[in-house]
Amino acid sequence: MIKVAFQGESGAFSEIASKKMFGDKIIVSPSFSFEEVFLKVKNGDVNFGIIPIENSLYGSVFETYDLLLKYSMNIVGELNLQINHNLIAKKNYKLSEIRKVYSHPQALGQCSEFLKKMKNAEVVPTYDTAGSALISLNNNAEPTAAIASKNASKIYKLKILKSDIQNNKENYTRFYAISKNKSKKNPEHPKSSICFELKNIPGALFKALSVFALKEINLLKIESRPIPHKPFQYIFYIDFSGALYDYKIKQAVKHLTEFSLSIKMLGTYETGKIFIS
Amino acid sequence: MIKVAFQGESGAFSEIASKKMFGDKIIVSPSFSFEEVFLKVKNGDVNFGIIPIENSLYGSVFETYDLLLKYSMNIVGELNLQINHNLIAKKNYKLSEIRKVYSHPQALGQCSEFLKKMKNAEVVPTYDTAGSALISLNNNAEPTAAIASKNASKIYKLKILKSDIQNNKENYTRFYAISKNKSKKNPEHPKSSICFELKNIPGALFKALSVFALKEINLLKIESRPIPHKPFQYIFYIDFSGALYDYKIKQAVKHLTEFSLSIKMLGTYETGKIFIS
Repeated sequence: MIKVAFQGESGAFSEIASKKMFGDKIIVSPSFSFEEVFLKVKNGDVNFGIIPIENSLYGSVFETYDLLLKYSMNIVGELNLQINHNLIAKKNYKLSEIRKVYSHPQALGQCSEFLKKMKNAEVVPTYDTAGSALISLNNNAEPTAAIASKNASKIYKLKILKSDIQNNKENYTRFYAISKNKSKKNPEHPKSSICFELKNIPGALFKALSVFALKEINLLKIESRPIPHKPFQYIFYIDFSGALYDYKIKQAVKHLTEFSLSIKMLGTYETGKIFIS
Repeated sequence: MIKVAFQGESGAFSEIASKKMFGDKIIVSPSFSFEEVFLKVKNGDVNFGIIPIENSLYGSVFETYDLLLKYSMNIVGELNLQINHNLIAKKNYKLSEIRKVYSHPQALGQCSEFLKKMKNAEVVPTYDTAGSALISLNNNAEPTAAIASKNASKIYKLKILKSDIQNNKENYTRFYAISKNKSKKNPEHPKSSICFELKNIPGALFKALSVFALKEINLLKIESRPIPHKPFQYIFYIDFSGALYDYKIKQAVKHLTEFSLSIKMLGTYETGKIFIS
């Protein structure tokens, strides 16, 4: 049985991503923080971790970038999950009866237009979408609801009062699967990620990107993170099409060493497909 | 009299940055959110706004990037502030007497090594460093302290129990001054910022950066932010040496239009100096 760790309570979007990636029969391991997910993978408590790297509305998840560097993990899979929010509650309340709506601040923000119409309800921020379902379930004092996934409504046996209540339907989160080991099978549509620290020379970033451009390697994303003891210097993370074992990519990485103080291979994986939550 | 808006309570690091930039005789306008700062500038309630764009330990302030695009403001100044944290309290307590330490979660994290030694004190997260000084001042039930700037200790007449308690002394925040109008005087050491959305063509980012590299324009920073209705497409923000009115930069920007759907000039300003908080 495959064990997979993710951040959040049971019913979190990361749990949905875990099951889309590895199937319904996995053993899931809900975790308190992203770092706990990395530690469980490192210590061999689980086979894989599932972590969000980017949301199409909010941008990169900085903490994940920093942890990828800190823990020397291999990215072995990718997946894009369309985030659909739902108003869920213990009973089939009318919307006007509900006194409180719980959810994570980001989910509340993503449903702000819907929430404006719920004039009798106080909006209450919580630490987690799935956790908000639990809080609503345990409040016996008044009619409340939570904003969470369909999956959370199933797990906690709550009713869906209204589905797909987010402002913007084009809301995707990109997840990585991480492992202590490299992926064994060669992906059909490979994508790779590396990170590097550049030498302090003029035009270093341009030169680094040239190495890939001159070999017609398609750069898909660039991200930068600060280096703590070197103010306003950066670690760059890039994603590109192709595999780290391809000849031309090996050559490009070799050339990159000329401009870099250090380079780290983060992994080659199958380009992520889109799934609906 | 110059009026300057910043986010936070009186005594915030942004207030210190405001005074380093415009002098001590300004009228300051503390604001609840970054967006309120932009709105005050837009509505003419203040002459300038001061906003953090990047911290050398935590990275870019995403919200500021998004607001610069939303409000079409001009960046007219830049400043780097070394962030020094201090333990401040109503009375000259011994450290072992203190029962609670209040501050913003980021400041608490930045002083984690010092806090480990304060075994009798509970660590309490608050919304703002300067605000935590106010909370500590108003708690008459027990001996408490706050982690905040020297300036906050002056404003609220609190004692500094211990200064410079942060783990990492190399902690800088970079601020921008924003205005409705362009800067009138030409900077001695000009720096400029622009943002652009690239056409969806292969190697577009490399081509965009080539335009600057081929003219030996020194790229200082690149940042990307998601475009809400175009999942996993990005607005790029770049900072470079030189002024937008320089001939070679005008030419570079003209060439950039070949690969871009849109380009926005954010401003030319004097390269920021370093100040101590």
